[in-house]
Amino acid sequence: MSQIYDRVALIGLGLIASSMFWAIKRAGLAGEVTGYARSEETRETARRIGLCDKVYDTAKDAVKDADLVVLCVPVGVMGAVAADLAPALKPGATLTDVGSVKRQVISDVTPHLSDDIHFVPAHPLAGTEHSGPESGFAELFDNRWCLLITDDTTDRKAADDLAAFWRGLGSMVEEMDADHHDLVLAVTSHTPHLIAYTMVGVADDLRRVSESEVIKYSASGFRDFTRIAASDPTMWRDVFLNNKDATLEILGRFTEELFALQRAIRRGDGDHLHAYFTRTRAIRRGIIEAGQDTDAPDFGRGKAQ
Amino acid sequence: MSQIYDRVALIGLGLIASSMFWAIKRAGLAGEVTGYARSEETRETARRIGLCDKVYDTAKDAVKDADLVVLCVPVGVMGAVAADLAPALKPGATLTDVGSVKRQVISDVTPHLSDDIHFVPAHPLAGTEHSGPESGFAELFDNRWCLLITDDTTDRKAADDLAAFWRGLGSMVEEMDADHHDLVLAVTSHTPHLIAYTMVGVADDLRRVSESEVIKYSASGFRDFTRIAASDPTMWRDVFLNNKDATLEILGRFTEELFALQRAIRRGDGDHLHAYFTRTRAIRRGIIEAGQDTDAPDFGRGKAQ
Ligand SMILES: NC(=O)c1ccc[n+]([C@@H]2O[C@H](COP(=O)([O-])OP(=O)(O)OC[C@H]3O[C@@H](n4cnc5c(N)ncnc54)[C@H](OP(=O)(O)O)[C@@H]3O)[C@@H](O)[C@H]2O)c1
Ligand SMILES: NC(=O)c1ccc[n+]([C@@H]2O[C@H](COP(=O)([O-])OP(=O)(O)OC[C@H]3O[C@@H](n4cnc5c(N)ncnc54)[C@H](OP(=O)(O)O)[C@@H]3O)[C@@H](O)[C@H]2O)c1
Repeated sequence: MSQIYDRVALIGLGLIASSMFWAIKRAGLAGEVTGYARSEETRETARRIGLCDKVYDTAKDAVKDADLVVLCVPVGVMGAVAADLAPALKPGATLTDVGSVKRQVISDVTPHLSDDIHFVPAHPLAGTEHSGPESGFAELFDNRWCLLITDDTTDRKAADDLAAFWRGLGSMVEEMDADHHDLVLAVTSHTPHLIAYTMVGVADDLRRVSESEVIKYSASGFRDFTRIAASDPTMWRDVFLNNKDATLEILGRFTEELFALQRAIRRGDGDHLHAYFTRTRAIRRGIIEAGQDTDAPDFGRGKAQ
Repeated sequence: MSQIYDRVALIGLGLIASSMFWAIKRAGLAGEVTGYARSEETRETARRIGLCDKVYDTAKDAVKDADLVVLCVPVGVMGAVAADLAPALKPGATLTDVGSVKRQVISDVTPHLSDDIHFVPAHPLAGTEHSGPESGFAELFDNRWCLLITDDTTDRKAADDLAAFWRGLGSMVEEMDADHHDLVLAVTSHTPHLIAYTMVGVADDLRRVSESEVIKYSASGFRDFTRIAASDPTMWRDVFLNNKDATLEILGRFTEELFALQRAIRRGDGDHLHAYFTRTRAIRRGIIEAGQDTDAPDFGRGKAQ
């Protein structure tokens, strides 16, 4: 893999930015990588662990002369951060972001950009429940999808370079429009997260079952939910507030289906339950065949023992 | 570990029974292990792979002279299977089961037993989404809990021997009563499974997002749900039909909380969301500290790549 940009600026230095940095270095995708984080503490940590070739105290300084600027901050502050650094962007530079929601980020960021900036939003479908500058690792994006948001106003060269860059980071790249992205993610990620948070909250609340029992006996099912529900609260608050419509739509369908299953349980309608549970198996087979997961039987437990 | 029973009979030869067999042999917990399965096909498979020292064509023959008989069939047929084999049980024998629901199994099985049989229900909290005689492995129960159901009518010696047996299989053992078991499991396993099935069903139904998109982009959150939702339909139908009250109670609380979060999203109440998501993190930390899971960042993906 060879160099794609002379200078890349990472704005926000958490899980995604730090993983990008290590993956950029692994593949030699940029001549120099600069960085900026909001807090002095994060900037100090970054300097200490060698995260970025140079860490600046302001976003404006970090983006100066950068050919690619990547916004790696929570979805809810993308607009404010873009407003702050926009005046310092180099004419002809590409601006991108890694936010988990796209329509709202685009409306928040675009008004601050002059015509000579190419904005190509992106979303790497890779993450962990950890956050901060020390949580990143070069392999995070390997064999994961990165979605680029494009339409007929997109600068083709800017999008193609960015696609090559994400492939260099290890990802597979696909393009789609913002609304479709937000709906797909509402189904495959946002609503499942909300449901997992809810279920863990219910368990936590239940007086007759102690927290230590919930923890001890979480061998199956629930354990996966707790991992999901340990994700960063700020990130996920912003996701739900900014992908409101799609999340509410999917939630509506979810509760509809759940009520039907609940009624089947109450009525003792075993055929309905069995048919439903049979149908959902097919999707799992598809995921295993697509190489997105493993069906090893001790999966998810081996390392803990 | 030394021999605890001269002769153990496994009734039903699926995931749990086959794992028990390999773990019994690993630790030398029984002199001889006999087995029975409903279908000729499963009995043939068992004979071919050496699952059980002897496989019988009837449950009655398999349990003759056994000191411990383990019912390893779906929850919904425990009563019928017990009725069939009860006349052949050796006086003084211990009967147990591995069903995921306890109150209903106890009411279904007990009426068929004479007074000289010690019935001690059990539930190993270990499983995978696979089933059948070839899915078992000796390590399934290692470091997992096995819950024994006891009360003041329980024969102490029978319960203590069974506890030693499960420890020999690799488990940690705890005792509780049937109703508490059913509530704990409704929270930590049954309701999470129903929710995962529902979410996967919703994704499958959604016209505007293709199944191949759901499969491709299931990197986070949803992927865990699909694994859960790939579990055996018969087993889970029986779980919900037989743990109706506790499941419906927990489902009621779940929808209440979900509606509150849904309203917070609709109203843009970020503080409510943030506070809720912060609270649920603590439980995850507890689970990791209790050694029930790992917080390795690439957890759940490593093997697939
Ligand atoms: N984590 C995932 O699973 C995942 C996956 C795909 C996409 N994403 C998206 O990636 C983005 C970053 O997520 P992450 O997981 O890398 O988060 P993270 O580890 O929490 O890091 C967030 C970074 O943003 C900075 N920041 C937070 N609030 C800010 C503000 N008001 N103004 C300026 N900077 C601020 C933080 O600075 P301080 O350290 O100084 O507070 C930190 O450097 C989010 O938009 C998220 O939606 C996340
Ligand atoms: N899987 C888990 O995660 C898990 C965890 C803990 C406890 N459990 C409990 O363990 C028990 C067995 O589960 P499993 O996962 O081992 O199931 P499995 O792999 O599907 O095996 C079930 C066995 O029961 C037999 N069987 C099914 N219906 C029967 C009937 N009507 N009459 C007689 N035998 C019948 C089957 O015989 P054929 O092969 O001939 O059809 C098979 O040998 C269930 O009660 C379940 O609740 C399961």
